[in-house]
Amino acid sequence: MAEELIGNCLVAQSGGPTAVINASVAGVVSEALNHPCIEEIYGGMNGVLGILKEELIDLAEESQQNIRGLRHTPASALGTCRFKLKRDQDYERILEVFEAHNIRYFFYAGGNDSQDTADKISKLAQKKDYALRVIGVPKTIDNDLVTTDHCPGYGSVVKYICSVVKETALDHEAMGQHDLVSIIEVMGRNAGWIAAGATLAKGRENPHDAPHLIYLPELSFSKEKFVEDVQGVLKKNKYCLVVVGEGLLDKDGNYVANSASSQDAFGHQQLGGVGDYLASLVEENLAVKARSSKLGTGQRAAAHCSSQTDNDEAFMAGQAAVKAAVDGETDKMVILVRSEGENYQCETGLADLSEIANGVKEIPPEWISEDGVSMSAKFIKYCQPLIQGEVEVPYENGVPSFVRLSRKRIRKVLDPHEFE
Amino acid sequence: MAEELIGNCLVAQSGGPTAVINASVAGVVSEALNHPCIEEIYGGMNGVLGILKEELIDLAEESQQNIRGLRHTPASALGTCRFKLKRDQDYERILEVFEAHNIRYFFYAGGNDSQDTADKISKLAQKKDYALRVIGVPKTIDNDLVTTDHCPGYGSVVKYICSVVKETALDHEAMGQHDLVSIIEVMGRNAGWIAAGATLAKGRENPHDAPHLIYLPELSFSKEKFVEDVQGVLKKNKYCLVVVGEGLLDKDGNYVANSASSQDAFGHQQLGGVGDYLASLVEENLAVKARSSKLGTGQRAAAHCSSQTDNDEAFMAGQAAVKAAVDGETDKMVILVRSEGENYQCETGLADLSEIANGVKEIPPEWISEDGVSMSAKFIKYCQPLIQGEVEVPYENGVPSFVRLSRKRIRKVLDPHEFE
Repeated sequence: MAEELIGNCLVAQSGGPTAVINASVAGVVSEALNHPCIEEIYGGMNGVLGILKEELIDLAEESQQNIRGLRHTPASALGTCRFKLKRDQDYERILEVFEAHNIRYFFYAGGNDSQDTADKISKLAQKKDYALRVIGVPKTIDNDLVTTDHCPGYGSVVKYICSVVKETALDHEAMGQHDLVSIIEVMGRNAGWIAAGATLAKGRENPHDAPHLIYLPELSFSKEKFVEDVQGVLKKNKYCLVVVGEGLLDKDGNYVANSASSQDAFGHQQLGGVGDYLASLVEENLAVKARSSKLGTGQRAAAHCSSQTDNDEAFMAGQAAVKAAVDGETDKMVILVRSEGENYQCETGLADLSEIANGVKEIPPEWISEDGVSMSAKFIKYCQPLIQGEVEVPYENGVPSFVRLSRKRIRKVLDPHEFE
Repeated sequence: MAEELIGNCLVAQSGGPTAVINASVAGVVSEALNHPCIEEIYGGMNGVLGILKEELIDLAEESQQNIRGLRHTPASALGTCRFKLKRDQDYERILEVFEAHNIRYFFYAGGNDSQDTADKISKLAQKKDYALRVIGVPKTIDNDLVTTDHCPGYGSVVKYICSVVKETALDHEAMGQHDLVSIIEVMGRNAGWIAAGATLAKGRENPHDAPHLIYLPELSFSKEKFVEDVQGVLKKNKYCLVVVGEGLLDKDGNYVANSASSQDAFGHQQLGGVGDYLASLVEENLAVKARSSKLGTGQRAAAHCSSQTDNDEAFMAGQAAVKAAVDGETDKMVILVRSEGENYQCETGLADLSEIANGVKEIPPEWISEDGVSMSAKFIKYCQPLIQGEVEVPYENGVPSFVRLSRKRIRKVLDPHEFE
C-alpha cells in the first residue's frame, strides 16, 4: 500500500473539446467522493491557463444533477485552453497555486500536448519535494495518443460522421442519374483515424456503399491518382462519396490545402479547405459536378449522436485516474486496454506520461487497404466496437439540453501571475 | 359524395430529399390500403423521369416492416429527380403511362416546381377527358410553399441545425478567451426559413446564447454592416456564432457568393461558399480568427436528429392526400393548417395546385427583428412547435439503420419514350 496522501484534488481539461471529456470529469468527481483522503474537489478553469490565474471552482458544490448531466454534455464544462507553458516561472506558478490550495492530486484530461504539460508539472513537484500525484486522462477525437488502445472522444466523432455519411449517401442515391462527386471534410490533423472511421458507414452487404474513397494524411496525396480513383468509382456507381481528413499531405509533406489562417499556440497549422480543393480538382479534371461539405467544430461536440461505449470509457478513465492516484501512482496517464478474445472488452491501465507526451500514433499501414483509399478488415475490427450504443441526450423544447456548471469560485489567496 | 373512381394509384417523389418525405409515402400507402377503390399501389421511380420511362414498382409487395421503416428513413426511397417536363409530348407520355397501367390516382410529393408539374398533368388529363385525381403532397426543407402554414421537412432540418449550433456554441464557449468568429452555412435558396430557424438554439434564459447573428436572403447583405454586427457581438461575448443561408443576396439581388458551378435543370443557380466568404470578410476586416463550416447535403437527410412533429405531419399529409382523392378532389395540394389558440395543433386542408406552383413564401418582414440579424417573438412562436419530439431511429452496429425498398418492378407495356 502506498502512503496515504491527504489533501485536495484538482481536475482540469485541455485542448480541443470532445463529446465525452465531461464524462471523464464526472468520473473523477464520482470516484473522488469515495476516498476520504481526498478532501476538496476542485476544478481548474480553462486548463493550465486558469490554474496560473488561480481560477478554481468547487466541484463538490455542484448539484448531483449537474455532475450526472456532464455525462451527456459535450465540449469542456470547465473551459479549456491551448496555452503552452513555456517558462520555468509558469511551471513554478502552477506548483505555487497547488501549494496555496493544498492540491495533492492533479488530474488533467487532454491530448499529447496536455500530457506533456502534466509530465513537466509532475517532474517539477518531485524535484521540489512537493507531494503531488499527477494522473493524465486521455482525451482526443484524433485518437493519436500512443500506448492507449484508443482515446475517449474518438468513438463518438466516428459515430456522428458515420451517421452523416450514411444519410448523405442515401440522399445522393435518391437523386437522379447524374454523376455526382461529394466530398465530406472531417477533422484529423496528423493522423487519419477520424476519416478512416467513416468506413463503418458502409453496410456489410453492399460493397458499393459509401464512403467510396477515404483519403488519409498517412498516405501522400497525388492529384492524378485522386482523379483516377474518382473515375473508377463513377464507372460502377452513379455517385462518389469521398471522406477526407483535413490534414492531407502532399509527397513533400506539405498540407494539400492551406487556409489563410496562421498557426495555433503549439505551432500547429490551422487547417481547412481540403474538401473544397478536392471538389475543384474534380470539376477541373472530370466533367462532373462536385460538392463539398465541412462538418466543422460541431463534429467533435456532437453529443446528440455520440457513442455510449465511448462515453462509458471516458467516465471509467476518470474513475481510474482517481483510483490510481489514491493507490500511490503518479506521473502516469490512464490508458485503455483492449482484452484479448473475440468479444470486445476494455479495461484501464497506466503508462508513463513521458511516453505519451508528443508521440503520435499513426494508423498501422496494414490497416489501410492496398488501394490506399479504403480500410482493411483489421481496422474495421478495431474500430467497430468503439461506436456501439447511443447516448441518450435529453431534449428540452426540441433541442438537446445540456448542463452548465454553477462554477462557485474558490477565493484567490495569491497575487496575480504575470504573463508574457 | 363524389363518383367512385376505381383504379390504381401512383405515388412519386420529386426535388431535393428530406428527412421525412418517405414518411409521406408511408402515409399514402397506409391510407390507400383502406380504400377498396384503389386497386394497386404503385411507386414511380425518380419522379416524373421514371414515369416517362415507365419505371414503376409495386409498393403493395413491400413488407410491412419496409413501409413502417420508411417513417424514419431519410432521402427519397423511390428516388427523385430535378427533371423539368418541358415538351407537350412529355406530358402526353405521362398520361399514356397512366392509361397503360390504369392509374387513376396520382400523388406527387415535392416542392413548388413539382406541384407545377402535377398541376399541368392534372389539367392535361381533364382536357383529354382521362379520369384522374391528382393531389400534391407538400415537401421542402426550404419551407417556401405558399398557402400551407409550413412544409413537411422543414421542422426536421431546423431541429438538426439547432442541435449542431448548440453543440458548436458549447465548444466555442469552452475554448480560451480568444475572439473567434464561427460561421455555419445552411441551406435555403430563395428564403431564409432554415437559417431563421437556427434561432431556436438560443436558450430562453440567456440573451447572449448563439446564434448571435443570422443572415437571411430576405434582407440584402451589406459587408459594412456585417463587419459592424460582428464587432458589436465581440464586444459583449468572447465568440460570435453566425448562421447564414446559402442564398444570401447583395443589394442588386445577386448572390453574395457564387460557386463556380452552373445552374440546375430549373435554372436555379447552384450555391455554396457564402460561409467561407463571410469568414474571409472577418479575417480581412477584423484582427480575429474566423472559421466556417458547411453542413451540406447531410442536413436535409439528418433523420438521426429529426422532429417527431414534422414526421407525424408528413405522414398525415400523405394520408390526407389519399383521403381527398378518394373523396373526389383533384388538382389540389394538401396543406398544413395551424389551429387558432395557444396550444399548437395542426390539421390538413387543400389548396389549388395552380396557387402553389412557382410561388415562394418569404418570411414576413415583421418576423425579423429590426436589427436584421435576429428573429422576433412571432417567428419563434411560429417555428418552435415544429421541432418538438425526437424520432427514434434504430441503430445497427453503431450506425442508423434505414430501409431499402425491395422495388419489385411492374412489367413495362409501352415502347420506350424518346428524350430530348
